[in-house]
Amino acid sequence: MSQSPIVLTGDRPTGPLHLGHYVGSLRQRVTLQEQYRQFVMIADAQALTDNMGDLSKVRRNVIEVALDYLAVGLDPAKSTLFIQSQLTELAELSFYLLNLVTVARLERNPTVKEEIRLRGMERDIPAGFLTYPVSQTADITAFKAALVPVGADQAPMIEQCNELVRRFNNCVGKEILVEAQALIPDHGRLVGADGGAKMSKSLGNALALSADSAAIAAFVRSMYTDPNHLRVSDPGQVEGNVVFTYLDVFDPDKAAVEELKDHYRRGGLGDTVLKRRLTEHLEALITPIRERRAQFAQDPAEVMNILRQGTERAREAAAATMSEVKAALGLSYWN
Amino acid sequence: MSQSPIVLTGDRPTGPLHLGHYVGSLRQRVTLQEQYRQFVMIADAQALTDNMGDLSKVRRNVIEVALDYLAVGLDPAKSTLFIQSQLTELAELSFYLLNLVTVARLERNPTVKEEIRLRGMERDIPAGFLTYPVSQTADITAFKAALVPVGADQAPMIEQCNELVRRFNNCVGKEILVEAQALIPDHGRLVGADGGAKMSKSLGNALALSADSAAIAAFVRSMYTDPNHLRVSDPGQVEGNVVFTYLDVFDPDKAAVEELKDHYRRGGLGDTVLKRRLTEHLEALITPIRERRAQFAQDPAEVMNILRQGTERAREAAAATMSEVKAALGLSYWN
Repeated sequence: MSQSPIVLTGDRPTGPLHLGHYVGSLRQRVTLQEQYRQFVMIADAQALTDNMGDLSKVRRNVIEVALDYLAVGLDPAKSTLFIQSQLTELAELSFYLLNLVTVARLERNPTVKEEIRLRGMERDIPAGFLTYPVSQTADITAFKAALVPVGADQAPMIEQCNELVRRFNNCVGKEILVEAQALIPDHGRLVGADGGAKMSKSLGNALALSADSAAIAAFVRSMYTDPNHLRVSDPGQVEGNVVFTYLDVFDPDKAAVEELKDHYRRGGLGDTVLKRRLTEHLEALITPIRERRAQFAQDPAEVMNILRQGTERAREAAAATMSEVKAALGLSYWN
Repeated sequence: MSQSPIVLTGDRPTGPLHLGHYVGSLRQRVTLQEQYRQFVMIADAQALTDNMGDLSKVRRNVIEVALDYLAVGLDPAKSTLFIQSQLTELAELSFYLLNLVTVARLERNPTVKEEIRLRGMERDIPAGFLTYPVSQTADITAFKAALVPVGADQAPMIEQCNELVRRFNNCVGKEILVEAQALIPDHGRLVGADGGAKMSKSLGNALALSADSAAIAAFVRSMYTDPNHLRVSDPGQVEGNVVFTYLDVFDPDKAAVEELKDHYRRGGLGDTVLKRRLTEHLEALITPIRERRAQFAQDPAEVMNILRQGTERAREAAAATMSEVKAALGLSYWN
């Protein structure tokens, strides 16, 4: 058994993943799987928290997300890809952890507060929504994950997790659960084509990982640049210009990008040239992803089989933790 | 497979059961097991909700409660005796049901409100406490129980349960879970020896089901009667006189008890006579229970084995429901 630290990460299957996911998390995972024991969870049970009215959406997107994982290069031999709902251990661990946190503390969780505000829910939030930091803690601690890649805005969730870990261990008088560390990605969130802070399929500003050449070109064409840069000869603004934001992320030739920025600022450089350059980079990135995705998509049974095997491996790990947890709680009767 | 309605009942293992439990629920279960498919749950996981600071109390009382069950005549061939924590399905079902109830609704639950008030907890209640009506709903619905014996004060819990049942079935568009009916016992709560509304070991006003003759006699001797009935010849008060309250419950000769009441009211009847009569009835009731209890207690391994077999039967039932639940939620991937 490898002693390398454990990483827990994953996504809610509410739609296919897009370029924002790729930059924000997927490409990091492809690196992480080389060094760590990585569990990648398709959080279908979690997704139900606010999709009880559209069950088929969750069901249908499980395989879409799995295809995205395989397409970007997550290797089932290195990363354990699994489906959350198939591990009853996770719900069970949540159940016990719920006794160790007060309602008031959950309500103070900044991530929960922000989500409550965004949805205008107040006290009409579903109980499962208020308690989701506990469920998330169960997901992390069931694998004894030491590292959890999350956006900076999710750091309070890791604090909450560690609070529960300490409380549990203190309660049973043993170090059973393990504190986790947030792994904040190098790049922040990728803006949408419109410059909006959030890339999202529903906002129409996202690029799917299965995008074909035409879609990639259309995506780049739609990008927000500098509305005052009307003629090629005009000086243009680089800051807030989405094409440059993207070149910073996707163009490996940093020096060339800096030169382009200077040129653009002086005037004499048209958006078309820049957009063509970005399109080429995105083509180079996405074409192999799209092709691998299409290949895996031809054999959905094999994809489900990969998930099944991953789920079995994940269950072994979670069951081992739960068996320690229950013994520590005094709830092992027949061993 | 029997088609008789299913009963779900049980106790939190926080201490051995006493005469109050016998009158309030145990003897009813002995009758119910003849007509119904009865599941009797030792709610160890539930007991942890407010016993995380004293884990061994719960652990140690599981077998005490099991001994009480067997002693009063619950027959493992007729009633399925099981340990809650060993059925992960119950925690799993809770997890999904949490999405179907708001925090505000749980806070309005009269039983939860009263408990919060009693414990002076306000918003510092553990989340597991706020959500326990959901957990209770899972316990009931996992067995598709049609009947749940509860005290009158617990009726709101059954309402809450049925609300969740309707919401779940509506959500999945199928009648999967079953509404339950409260079965209020004929006799209300048995008062303590001091006349206090609640018989409780910690209040020192309870009679254990394992009480020996001396303990029974001492219990009856300590009973509150009429403090103004100083001499035998004085007229005495029957109302609030605990000895009469008990004779009403335990003396099968109702006519004789009415005559004794008249005599007591007129004067000329001493407490000693009444207490001797009650002691005899309690002796007759408790002696065989104590003897059976002592017999089972000689073989704790066999008791744990009975619980193990019951737990396996219970798990089959709960797993069948959970498999329907998950299929309905769209979370069955490999069947």
